[in-house]
Amino acid sequence: MAALETDKSKDQTDLSALVSAEVSRQVAALRAELDKAIAELRERTPEDRAALVVFSGDLDRVLAAFVIATGAAAAGLETSIFFTFWGLSVVKKKGAAVASKGFKQRMFAMMTPEGSEGLGTSQLNFFGMGATMLRSMMKEQGIASLEELMGMAKDLGVKMMACTMSMDAMGIAKDELLSDLEFGGVAAFMADASRARVSLFI
Amino acid sequence: MAALETDKSKDQTDLSALVSAEVSRQVAALRAELDKAIAELRERTPEDRAALVVFSGDLDRVLAAFVIATGAAAAGLETSIFFTFWGLSVVKKKGAAVASKGFKQRMFAMMTPEGSEGLGTSQLNFFGMGATMLRSMMKEQGIASLEELMGMAKDLGVKMMACTMSMDAMGIAKDELLSDLEFGGVAAFMADASRARVSLFI
Amino acid sequence: MAALETDKSKDQTDLSALVSAEVSRQVAALRAELDKAIAELRERTPEDRAALVVFSGDLDRVLAAFVIATGAAAAGLETSIFFTFWGLSVVKKKGAAVASKGFKQRMFAMMTPEGSEGLGTSQLNFFGMGATMLRSMMKEQGIASLEELMGMAKDLGVKMMACTMSMDAMGIAKDELLSDLEFGGVAAFMADASRARVSLFI
Repeated sequence: MAALETDKSKDQTDLSALVSAEVSRQVAALRAELDKAIAELRERTPEDRAALVVFSGDLDRVLAAFVIATGAAAAGLETSIFFTFWGLSVVKKKGAAVASKGFKQRMFAMMTPEGSEGLGTSQLNFFGMGATMLRSMMKEQGIASLEELMGMAKDLGVKMMACTMSMDAMGIAKDELLSDLEFGGVAAFMADASRARVSLFI
Repeated sequence: MAALETDKSKDQTDLSALVSAEVSRQVAALRAELDKAIAELRERTPEDRAALVVFSGDLDRVLAAFVIATGAAAAGLETSIFFTFWGLSVVKKKGAAVASKGFKQRMFAMMTPEGSEGLGTSQLNFFGMGATMLRSMMKEQGIASLEELMGMAKDLGVKMMACTMSMDAMGIAKDELLSDLEFGGVAAFMADASRARVSLFI
Repeated sequence: MAALETDKSKDQTDLSALVSAEVSRQVAALRAELDKAIAELRERTPEDRAALVVFSGDLDRVLAAFVIATGAAAAGLETSIFFTFWGLSVVKKKGAAVASKGFKQRMFAMMTPEGSEGLGTSQLNFFGMGATMLRSMMKEQGIASLEELMGMAKDLGVKMMACTMSMDAMGIAKDELLSDLEFGGVAAFMADASRARVSLFI
């Protein structure tokens, strides 16, 4: 029976190895499968991003947009602002050489503000008085001006993108706009927005 | 001993099967548990959806809404637009037989546009001149008109839903609106929006 | 052979124990690892929340905001409304003792409505006629008034927060606003919005 005993002891070791190997094999398969499921799921969770559309060219709404954008960036979200339509006024250079435009484009340019300092308020504007009052009230309270907020946004790495379709429609050339803008269409906005935790139309 | 040897070899095979079965059994419990956790998590991740509320009846805002909606649909998101309040003007049929309305409803109907072609712009409208200019500037640049965008949206399978509460408030009947609309209230919108990657109020 | 049989049966028991121990050991590591991955992922999925910014003080837009907020809360989402800028008018107390204000703040206060009942519509307002008509049309249809919706929102546990920066800019003191409001800045809004399934700027 001695031989058998030895056999048994060897069997025991073999058995441990066998169990260990089988467990490893099955656990590895499960791990691979679950890792894949988790990776797919991670792909589906929002990234730490915020994406804003600034459609409006009203001082009050644009202020709100930049307060939110700097707030989002300060909270650690990668933040982008997509300027479209009237919102393009915000990122116009003051006194930029104007591209050769058609009559309608010239009229539109004449009637829309040239840069952030020309924006009026959405309510109580009274030919600019609302904007002057709002700016002065904010200054008295030590609240950052729109231009200061724009500087902060830049410092915080907020991506600012001009809508190329609106630029085409309104006959606005790139050199009429602030430098360090990016340019893109709705696809560029959707790429950001569809991965973002927060997206707002302002 | 020969019989015993055979027995042992058979035992070995049995043993492997036994180990494998036992490991499977125990691993299955873990798999079931993790699968459940992952399924619950999947339930919590956003679906490939975008949900827009079109509250505004301004041509410029409605254009932006359809550019975004077609962009979202083209990017593979299942997209729905919920027309409410002034936004209902967009989906009114031109010259539809008007349901019997009260005096106030008739006045509202008279003062709000009849279909997409009647929409004015939110700024610089000047009794429709803004809309005419905008449409003409977009056409010159080869940009799709609102009606073309609406057609594209339909082709891309964008779901268009009219807000029944607004219809009630404004006395608008179903047959005054475009065909192939769906009808629903805020619960229907929330059902889409709460599963969406992007939701915007326009 | 009887002894051997017994041995085998004992071996069987041993085997189960061996497998069990080995599975436990290897699975525990996997479980710990996956539990961590899943917890991280859960952290990244949106919570059952909705976060609205009410920037506008227009009756129609504010109505839409409260319809959406009560709809979201009824659908089980923890809902918060952040009142900023013109939106602060909604949560002003009627006839509240006015804090000592500067000249500009007094003018702003005079020209903005005092509470929900003073709000005008964004379109067709005609010095308040639009609001009166809209309210009357809604009442005839048995649709909840703004004040009723605000009550419903409160009953459903919707969190209402006043933007402290706007209050500062406009010189509005806490005791001019409804009781049971919370107070916060953009960071408070972002904390809600970045965890929410739906966030809208109205």
